[in-house]
Amino acid sequence: MRVLILGGDGYLGWPTAMDFAAAGHECCVADNYLRRHIAEATDSEALMVAPSLTERAQIFRAASGYHIDVRIGDLSDPEVMFEIVRDFSPDTIIHYAEQPSAPYSMRGFREAQETFQNNLNVTFNCIWAVKDLVPDCQIVKLGTMGEYGTPNIDIEEGWIEIEHKGRKDTFLFPRAAGSLYHTTKVLDTDLLWFYVRTYGLRVTDLMQGPVYGISTEEADLDPRLCPHFHYDDIFGTLVNRFLVQAVAGVPLTVYGGGGQTRGYLNLRDTLQCVRLAAGNPAKRGELRIFNQLTEIFTVNEVAERVKTVGDKMGLDVAIKSIPNPRKEKEEHYYNPTHSGLRELGLIPHYMTDDVVAATLERIIANKDRIVTGRIMPRVRWN
Amino acid sequence: MRVLILGGDGYLGWPTAMDFAAAGHECCVADNYLRRHIAEATDSEALMVAPSLTERAQIFRAASGYHIDVRIGDLSDPEVMFEIVRDFSPDTIIHYAEQPSAPYSMRGFREAQETFQNNLNVTFNCIWAVKDLVPDCQIVKLGTMGEYGTPNIDIEEGWIEIEHKGRKDTFLFPRAAGSLYHTTKVLDTDLLWFYVRTYGLRVTDLMQGPVYGISTEEADLDPRLCPHFHYDDIFGTLVNRFLVQAVAGVPLTVYGGGGQTRGYLNLRDTLQCVRLAAGNPAKRGELRIFNQLTEIFTVNEVAERVKTVGDKMGLDVAIKSIPNPRKEKEEHYYNPTHSGLRELGLIPHYMTDDVVAATLERIIANKDRIVTGRIMPRVRWN
Repeated sequence: MRVLILGGDGYLGWPTAMDFAAAGHECCVADNYLRRHIAEATDSEALMVAPSLTERAQIFRAASGYHIDVRIGDLSDPEVMFEIVRDFSPDTIIHYAEQPSAPYSMRGFREAQETFQNNLNVTFNCIWAVKDLVPDCQIVKLGTMGEYGTPNIDIEEGWIEIEHKGRKDTFLFPRAAGSLYHTTKVLDTDLLWFYVRTYGLRVTDLMQGPVYGISTEEADLDPRLCPHFHYDDIFGTLVNRFLVQAVAGVPLTVYGGGGQTRGYLNLRDTLQCVRLAAGNPAKRGELRIFNQLTEIFTVNEVAERVKTVGDKMGLDVAIKSIPNPRKEKEEHYYNPTHSGLRELGLIPHYMTDDVVAATLERIIANKDRIVTGRIMPRVRWN
Repeated sequence: MRVLILGGDGYLGWPTAMDFAAAGHECCVADNYLRRHIAEATDSEALMVAPSLTERAQIFRAASGYHIDVRIGDLSDPEVMFEIVRDFSPDTIIHYAEQPSAPYSMRGFREAQETFQNNLNVTFNCIWAVKDLVPDCQIVKLGTMGEYGTPNIDIEEGWIEIEHKGRKDTFLFPRAAGSLYHTTKVLDTDLLWFYVRTYGLRVTDLMQGPVYGISTEEADLDPRLCPHFHYDDIFGTLVNRFLVQAVAGVPLTVYGGGGQTRGYLNLRDTLQCVRLAAGNPAKRGELRIFNQLTEIFTVNEVAERVKTVGDKMGLDVAIKSIPNPRKEKEEHYYNPTHSGLRELGLIPHYMTDDVVAATLERIIANKDRIVTGRIMPRVRWN
């Protein structure tokens, strides 16, 4: 396959690129370092320093022998998107190129506008580049389980048959997200679905839960290949943030009641899922949706899990509820279906004590790099 | 009320402004003439020449004594939006400021991008201007019945309770539109709903069917106050286009089978509906949705109606099916609820033979201005 990874510098984009390259695919990453710039501007830098994409590609080549093509450019500019797609001529595009922080998107007008315009314009340009230049190319788009919000009914995989007043039809599953960032992904899905059914594009939209972890086959080849590992309130996902707090001796900050329930997955499973989706493309005119998660936990369960393992390692972990900076239900029904990727062959890496301990060890080795001022929430929804 | 009308130069925006002003409200219109510029660029100008907004406001003042404040500016630029909202300090915003042509939005990348960015950015800026400057101000947003598409179930007014596997919840009614223009309104609704539930904005989203007509109380005061009356394939709505074709001796062009069914309304009823919605504001934190239509017809029924009246007037009207330039179902179930605005007091002006005849008379008086080259479809969906 000729795989173009949009957002190839990201927490998921970079290990995905190495994973595809190591599997023998022609691989190109495109990014404009938006996330790095936002991290600098908001004092939210990752735990380990990452070399530039060009340098990482060189390090990866030296360590593994595999080549990754690197393009630096702003994909929200249609000229940049069209030039890269024309030049690389992919048969598979993995689209990660979105501003991924919910708190950042809720910080104020400027940040909301930046998120809204970047995310929607990249998706729009991607659709048009495929439609006009490589119409048979599949798009694998990273959505989020957050698109669905927390409805009081079972969450199906993207679609639902509704019976209403004696008649039936099938529709996109209802969506109601909890931040502007998540809402941009709802709009992405609407936009993709319009162009899929109108022009016969082939799209897989992956509704992914919060990802945790730092280790992948390729990332472990050299510490400089490590994905951006964020523990701050802006980019840090829940599990990663708790793990760093455990090491730093900062009580695990549970937002509000801690009953918020989500479906999580290991970084290694993100790579598996994306590779499975790309290896089994959607048909022309199909918007295929998978719910991408392996285990369901409440925030309190995640905190307890980290505490149990951390305490065994002598970290003496405390847990502390703080006022919830977000607007979200803290007790709710949550039952998402997630069988599609299992049926394609996904073998989950669960959040075992060993997995938690191994990640804690990596963080302990970088303990002196932790800046505790980045941990507490700096953005409120209201 | 202090009523700010975004898109106040449009087919609906201008008569709405006169209607509110004549009812004694403080009224301000904002527009950047986008529709006029697109009409020029695509050879799709309206039947009658309209003076500038400033001139029309002067003519209206001379004819009626009522003042309309005019601001010319691009509302997709947040600085323009914020300045106007700060300066006028509305308690009601009527948001019409969108590129309204489905065919234009399907013409190519540039037109799609222009539609996408204009429509989404105006809505985004409007939301933020209200949230940050006048949080108690209501927004009355013009959506479209086209957001729903043609589902195989009854169309409710914006919301639907879904019972699924023994549990229940209420969601936005599913949406699947037939053009990029209509899809931008789906995205508008998603975006409005996010900000309404997060920040307690008060919004009424009016799902309007195709509008027809040229006559309103105020527009009839002076021919120069006439709304833009389009009969071209780009901006002309179905009924208006058929009426001009009848006068021009061009067979009424039914796209495909003509079984396409939609809910129509008279321009006078658009004004009534918007005034009823604004006079009975949504509550804080409420996204209230009404389906804005008064009668349901197939395309063939509209054609027959125009032919019947036209023939009586000696026009000798022919009807001719042409290959459908759009991608849409030509036979489908269609049963939209539309009781909300009736309950608020809407008294419909139906498409009677007299109404059709009166509009034909107005067109006959301008017959020499008809450019028949603007009538046939110049944009195909594929």
